[in-house]
Amino acid sequence: MMLDDRNTWTYAQPPMTAAAVLSIGTELTRGELANANARWLGERLVELGLDVVEHVAVADDAERIRGTLLRLAAEVKVIVCTGGLGPTSDDLTTAVVADALGVALQRDADTLAKLEARFRSLRQREMPANNAKQADFPKGARILANGVGSAPGFSVEIKTEKNTARAYFMPGVPREMENIFDLQIAPELAKQVQASTYQVHIRTFGLFESLVAERLSDLDVGGAQHDPQVTIGYRVTFPEVEVKVLAQARDLAAARALAEKVAVQVRERLGSAAYGGKGESYVQYVAGLLRAARLKVAVAESCTGGLLGKLLTDPPGSSQYMLGGVISYSNSAKIRLLGVNEQLLQTHGAVSEEVARAMAEGALRSTEADAAIGVTGIAGPDGGTEQKPVGTICFGLARRNEPTLTFTERFPGSREFVRTYTAYHALRLFANAAKEVLDARM
Amino acid sequence: MMLDDRNTWTYAQPPMTAAAVLSIGTELTRGELANANARWLGERLVELGLDVVEHVAVADDAERIRGTLLRLAAEVKVIVCTGGLGPTSDDLTTAVVADALGVALQRDADTLAKLEARFRSLRQREMPANNAKQADFPKGARILANGVGSAPGFSVEIKTEKNTARAYFMPGVPREMENIFDLQIAPELAKQVQASTYQVHIRTFGLFESLVAERLSDLDVGGAQHDPQVTIGYRVTFPEVEVKVLAQARDLAAARALAEKVAVQVRERLGSAAYGGKGESYVQYVAGLLRAARLKVAVAESCTGGLLGKLLTDPPGSSQYMLGGVISYSNSAKIRLLGVNEQLLQTHGAVSEEVARAMAEGALRSTEADAAIGVTGIAGPDGGTEQKPVGTICFGLARRNEPTLTFTERFPGSREFVRTYTAYHALRLFANAAKEVLDARM
Repeated sequence: MMLDDRNTWTYAQPPMTAAAVLSIGTELTRGELANANARWLGERLVELGLDVVEHVAVADDAERIRGTLLRLAAEVKVIVCTGGLGPTSDDLTTAVVADALGVALQRDADTLAKLEARFRSLRQREMPANNAKQADFPKGARILANGVGSAPGFSVEIKTEKNTARAYFMPGVPREMENIFDLQIAPELAKQVQASTYQVHIRTFGLFESLVAERLSDLDVGGAQHDPQVTIGYRVTFPEVEVKVLAQARDLAAARALAEKVAVQVRERLGSAAYGGKGESYVQYVAGLLRAARLKVAVAESCTGGLLGKLLTDPPGSSQYMLGGVISYSNSAKIRLLGVNEQLLQTHGAVSEEVARAMAEGALRSTEADAAIGVTGIAGPDGGTEQKPVGTICFGLARRNEPTLTFTERFPGSREFVRTYTAYHALRLFANAAKEVLDARM
Repeated sequence: MMLDDRNTWTYAQPPMTAAAVLSIGTELTRGELANANARWLGERLVELGLDVVEHVAVADDAERIRGTLLRLAAEVKVIVCTGGLGPTSDDLTTAVVADALGVALQRDADTLAKLEARFRSLRQREMPANNAKQADFPKGARILANGVGSAPGFSVEIKTEKNTARAYFMPGVPREMENIFDLQIAPELAKQVQASTYQVHIRTFGLFESLVAERLSDLDVGGAQHDPQVTIGYRVTFPEVEVKVLAQARDLAAARALAEKVAVQVRERLGSAAYGGKGESYVQYVAGLLRAARLKVAVAESCTGGLLGKLLTDPPGSSQYMLGGVISYSNSAKIRLLGVNEQLLQTHGAVSEEVARAMAEGALRSTEADAAIGVTGIAGPDGGTEQKPVGTICFGLARRNEPTLTFTERFPGSREFVRTYTAYHALRLFANAAKEVLDARM
């Protein structure tokens, strides 16, 4: 039993500390300002091992601020709040907190002196009396030093019938908020929280969201618990799908080992669609492969109209692999700029593998590229036929001293969807060509 | 007294309808994704004349979703909710709403058929059984058609002891959410709201934000009150700047007259930079001019790498004016595909007005276009020199039977900024060419 107990304790999911983020300001509820603070705080709280259950933004309304604060104090252990600490009449936070706690406001002499000194040095005159309210704090509050501004934050304990919460209040100015959080709040929370979390991000291209879900289904993808300590999630960042493995354990090393173990399984299931980690886009990944393979490329674009070229030249230094190409949006451009045979266009139509082949070979012939892709298709919304509906795309891949590959795909969706997916599909063709070169060299 | 009372009544701010925005998804509370939907909805609700008192984002947790929904239903008249309508196991919204209302889920045959058809056309096979949950709705719910995706939203009335709220549920995918809100929800809310607001949107391209601010400064731009009933605001939607005139009055006709009066002044100050109204992008505006002028165009792109062609072919039906062109990212492509003289490149460098001219004339020569633009420049982050720093861009505009224009601009900023601004500047050149044709015809 002792052994069992110890094992249970070792592997049990550590109790998570529930937290909420409260943002105060009518500019937020009215949508005049994006709530970047809430996102930043959410991410930092999760990194610290807290369970962020809710974000709330409320207008500058004393009753609503008070009600929200007391509600959250009954529900979570940690409340992190920004905004409403300024000198104007609609900055209500401090007064509302004092009222909610049933305590008086107390002026802090040290803070007042700093505010006055800063005001004089910035504005060359005495501080108006109403600005002094930034030196007021609910009696008993702990003052949180602001390393980059004059108005500090503060922290109080809010007791309700069922629960006691620790609440932190910070200015809404992002760099002041971040300074106070990182230096004054995070160290305290890290001590308090038992669990450590570790995340592995896996970026994919080439499988639709539902197929990613299916492949990972018996790993319980989608936020369900794979194991008491691992959560797998995914999200679409069109046209990519990002997968995330989040592990929790009693220390960082254990969380990391667990996350990486599961990530290996996830990558196996996703095969070649899983291409990279956090922060690397598919375009950057393909650019890296082309550079490594020392492959020079060219394009011949019809329906994408330049998008493939635009993507290939997004990364700095893309002239290392991208030579250029032709936007052959009209038949006349296909004929005159790529040397596509007019008879071929008439016989097979502009959207055909024969024309895609001729476009790719034309781009290869008229540049010094090692590989060229031709794409021709029907992006819509009009122009589809029964045989070639909207979304029908023909690809050609021409390489030096190798037979040209051609094939047809269908990507049904909006014009933007079809064009974007087509360009990414062409990027994948270049990636595969680069991989072949790299494999042959090994 | 009677008169005073009546005057007060006439000009009183109409009673506002309280609204809340509810966002569902652990990716939001964890700060993995910025809550752009909440901001967008907050702004739209305010425009419609509602009083947005709170935004809440909650994790994918049935109890918390349920509790939040019932709490808001007791507090506000309108709840607008996004997220949690997908096919996976952590998409809980629909089931939670049914549970909160105490009704069963009902499968909608029409929605199911559409989901299955879309799945088959995308994936060429039958839809898995679990995807069918997107066709389930709480019994009695009103289905809200999704114009750009397969999963619709829905609307229900939630009765609590003190209050009855109308709640709307939409997918979290922004373009689907925006489509459903604008077409299905906004018209209904507009009818319900007492206050009349009228907005005029003025889209601009060609003036930086600070210059827009300056031009409008004595119209009290920047959200301050110009008049008790008019607010002027602006925001950057790179590379455009959008200006908004929002008027409030006791009825729609009065609000509209007021907004339009101020909008005339705003347009005068902004001159030719003010090109259009809400919902028309600069690309669509330029496409319309090219179509009207029956001008066929071609491009020769170096630093933009295809972006100009991509923008020109974004609108459906762009083959009416866009013939194609060349992506001459390398010197060899400039020489081989555009016939730029090698000596010219050596003497003046690839980034020069001489080369921009040769590129534009090359594109005109090798297509049947009426006008062609050549752009060559240094997008950065590397490659700048003292004489030609990063952001230096040379333009050439070649037309049939007219002398070629060339000039140089500098757009300092990131690689993405420089490339995007360059492509839009080229669009403006095409717009001006089209205007000249139209003027000559009059």
